[in-house]
Amino acid sequence: MADCPIDVAGIGNAIVDVLAHADDAQLGALGLTKGVMTLIDAQQADVLYAKMGPGLECSGGSAANTVAGIAALGGKAAYIGKVKNDQLGQVFRHDLHSQGVTFETAAAAAGPPTARCLIFVTPDAQRTMQTYLGACVELGPDDIDGDLLAAAQVTYLEGYLWDRPEAKAAFRKAATVAHAAGRQVALSLSDPFCVERHRAEFRQLVSEHIDILFANEAEITSLFQTDFDDAIRQLKGHVTVAAVTRGAKGSVVLSGDDVVVQAAEPVAQLVDTTGAGDLYAAGFLYGYTQGRDLAAAARLGGICAAEIISHFGARPAADLAGLVAAAPLLTV
Amino acid sequence: MADCPIDVAGIGNAIVDVLAHADDAQLGALGLTKGVMTLIDAQQADVLYAKMGPGLECSGGSAANTVAGIAALGGKAAYIGKVKNDQLGQVFRHDLHSQGVTFETAAAAAGPPTARCLIFVTPDAQRTMQTYLGACVELGPDDIDGDLLAAAQVTYLEGYLWDRPEAKAAFRKAATVAHAAGRQVALSLSDPFCVERHRAEFRQLVSEHIDILFANEAEITSLFQTDFDDAIRQLKGHVTVAAVTRGAKGSVVLSGDDVVVQAAEPVAQLVDTTGAGDLYAAGFLYGYTQGRDLAAAARLGGICAAEIISHFGARPAADLAGLVAAAPLLTV
Repeated sequence: MADCPIDVAGIGNAIVDVLAHADDAQLGALGLTKGVMTLIDAQQADVLYAKMGPGLECSGGSAANTVAGIAALGGKAAYIGKVKNDQLGQVFRHDLHSQGVTFETAAAAAGPPTARCLIFVTPDAQRTMQTYLGACVELGPDDIDGDLLAAAQVTYLEGYLWDRPEAKAAFRKAATVAHAAGRQVALSLSDPFCVERHRAEFRQLVSEHIDILFANEAEITSLFQTDFDDAIRQLKGHVTVAAVTRGAKGSVVLSGDDVVVQAAEPVAQLVDTTGAGDLYAAGFLYGYTQGRDLAAAARLGGICAAEIISHFGARPAADLAGLVAAAPLLTV
Repeated sequence: MADCPIDVAGIGNAIVDVLAHADDAQLGALGLTKGVMTLIDAQQADVLYAKMGPGLECSGGSAANTVAGIAALGGKAAYIGKVKNDQLGQVFRHDLHSQGVTFETAAAAAGPPTARCLIFVTPDAQRTMQTYLGACVELGPDDIDGDLLAAAQVTYLEGYLWDRPEAKAAFRKAATVAHAAGRQVALSLSDPFCVERHRAEFRQLVSEHIDILFANEAEITSLFQTDFDDAIRQLKGHVTVAAVTRGAKGSVVLSGDDVVVQAAEPVAQLVDTTGAGDLYAAGFLYGYTQGRDLAAAARLGGICAAEIISHFGARPAADLAGLVAAAPLLTV
């Protein structure tokens, strides 16, 4: 598929992250469930923001983080997602464009503001996310650019999209268009609570529409309601490729009868795990679309994940392409 | 002055920083002068932002950074500055409020948006700042809350204000009100180019209206158009206290015939010098208003400056009060 002008097109909730330090006592006082993503409404977002410490704003959004990572690695990436035409929407668009990502989805001119995710980062580097979807609720099938997806080797969808009927319709249209053009469709399961809300539908999606699946241990065991080894067994045959991350234990990649077990990269200083899964997917998909073997793709995923968790925020701060070039096993 | 409900009230340009990595070649291509602050208009800001890499947004503004640092140390701080009632203005207000800083200046309902400073951080940790003042140009004498300043031990003014007639009038009113209440007035010279633009006026201000002066080596030598040692000599008698920072060489503090030479604190990793002077002033003024001697105040300044240059952004990321408590010389 070397004729593809785009390596990966991501579709997801277009979100600006607001990151602040917090400790477990504060999470408790605010009634937050540590380590997961919870959806909140506009009023809850205002109340929570008022109680949050001084913040740092950084473009986020799971699939957007992934395509930003792919572009940082030198890949050709595109994005579909909905912001409002406001200051945070301009920040989100700028950050993708300046990374070289094609992003042409029209901004909403009216309605709720650009989405934001209030992220509380605890001293153990865990992130607890409260998301106000704002303008993301305006994303629908009309925003799916068929020509764009037909031109992309892989269409990458985030599971977070699977909460509203309009977004589900957009999701299905994207998968249909991509497959009709002979392309592959990837899905990230996104979050264990997200899997719990949509288990039956996600199982059907994975069986019928998904070629490449990304998940972490909590998500995959929740999907199949079983232990890790059994979940891995059940995955076989359902998808062309599955890449399952296990935090400090690295990742396991399956494809047909092949199984690759990849150790995690060393991390000098663990600061903030926001974006770890997104950047693993970035590294993996970059390797995959460049025709690298599964082990190399898994290693690339690990390198990108290690970079993102060494600093605040879910967009790469370092020169990812340089990091990869410096990894000896990957230069051959 | 233990009866003061406020330790330090800062007045300055209320700005949200947009930080991005850049290298010297990019600075050259963009025609930027490294290490200084340059004022740009709305159109220049748009053009430059479009050419800037992916950013990270963080509340900034010189005097605002200083009062945020004082609040983080446990001091009682207030701020006067002008944002617009837009998303970035809300971010700026939130970040001061959540740090415990009193900030009640009315936001502009119309006119230009909240100010932003495009900051290019080079691998040597130097910052090059391009500021679009936006709503800051709305700040005038009516925004100076006389009761607030009369209740503050020290009114702290940033030299950056000294560019527009309305802001100068606000500046003069603030100094007059503070002195009438028997309080002290501090000034930061802000930037060598700022000193160059206003040398004669700054010299007069320093002689007639300023009790406590903050400057770095480039600013103080520009003010007196002489070398460092001679500038220090000339400062004597002009102000009650002068604190001059010298980067990696630490700081020199003068008061009457007393001279304190303070070495710089060690910095594990130099990342971004944005806010170094602002946080030195925070530590120094916190110590000063707590009645600490000059050496302790200078050391506190050095500790806060070392923290801020170890990470991206000009607002403290670490627990400053904890850092100070852990510094053995300061616990007695």
